[in-house]
Amino acid sequence: MRIAIDMDDVLANSAMKALDFFHKEHGFGPSHEDIHGKDLHEAVSPEYSAKIVSYFFQKGFLRDVPLLPDCQEVVKKLYEKHEVFIVSAAMEMPYSLEDKFFWLEEHFPFISWKRIVFCGDKKIIHADILIDDRARNFEFFTGRPLLFTAHHNLKETRYERVNSWKEVERLLL
Amino acid sequence: MRIAIDMDDVLANSAMKALDFFHKEHGFGPSHEDIHGKDLHEAVSPEYSAKIVSYFFQKGFLRDVPLLPDCQEVVKKLYEKHEVFIVSAAMEMPYSLEDKFFWLEEHFPFISWKRIVFCGDKKIIHADILIDDRARNFEFFTGRPLLFTAHHNLKETRYERVNSWKEVERLLL
Repeated sequence: MRIAIDMDDVLANSAMKALDFFHKEHGFGPSHEDIHGKDLHEAVSPEYSAKIVSYFFQKGFLRDVPLLPDCQEVVKKLYEKHEVFIVSAAMEMPYSLEDKFFWLEEHFPFISWKRIVFCGDKKIIHADILIDDRARNFEFFTGRPLLFTAHHNLKETRYERVNSWKEVERLLL
Repeated sequence: MRIAIDMDDVLANSAMKALDFFHKEHGFGPSHEDIHGKDLHEAVSPEYSAKIVSYFFQKGFLRDVPLLPDCQEVVKKLYEKHEVFIVSAAMEMPYSLEDKFFWLEEHFPFISWKRIVFCGDKKIIHADILIDDRARNFEFFTGRPLLFTAHHNLKETRYERVNSWKEVERLLL
């Protein structure tokens, strides 16, 4: 079974890094309640919104993002049993490509470079399962979509949902 | 129709850059005849072989590779008519990721970042046609493979072959 796994907000807690970064930079910022059901950049005024989006285009920003709970352990178990690929839509931010690669190498050293995909549109990806936080990536997906819960997708109801890596473990292992 | 197109030795004349680079560095090197039916690094002694392989791991090496004849013009026509993706197995050489992205941006500015894929194993790619110089990438491919002629694949007989971008144009446009 081939399982494709997204990175941002599925393995890497990128939104939380951006939230912390914003708070540190400005001394204020959205609370966790403020970002319920939306993207971080939608929870601030337009002026700050562009700033938040720009973080992700900066070289280095995604290199030291914290991990989501339990993802290393569960992905390792999945990797041993299934054909796991990491599939990240990184191409919009070309300066993030190296950051993402070396972040994976650091935190998931067991994942071969053969199993890493950086793309734009995920419609070209062929897998049995796709674990992703963005419903838009399921639109053309022919396998079983698993929506990984993130603050911005809390209002999405169209897809089977997993709330944590422990839940993924119970479901697939 | 979705057409996936490889980069090295299909769009980018990477082997010729490496051959020229070797000659400039050493004052000698394989001739075009020497590399008939084999990879460049197979046409030199083991000592030099490792050196040639290492070129591709150096940051900057793939940034200024020359283009294969007619590829810009024909890919543009294909892009206008079909769903073209560029699919490069770049992940083994993480320092080539930026080089490859900005090389594409320079020479194929009409290609959206959404249509670029850098991967390891191409078995995860779902397309109707794959134009590639490496027969190994066709092993799990379910669409129509088109083997783009390169010095190293001249002895390959299992796949439909295209010898130039002009031939691709006649075949697909």
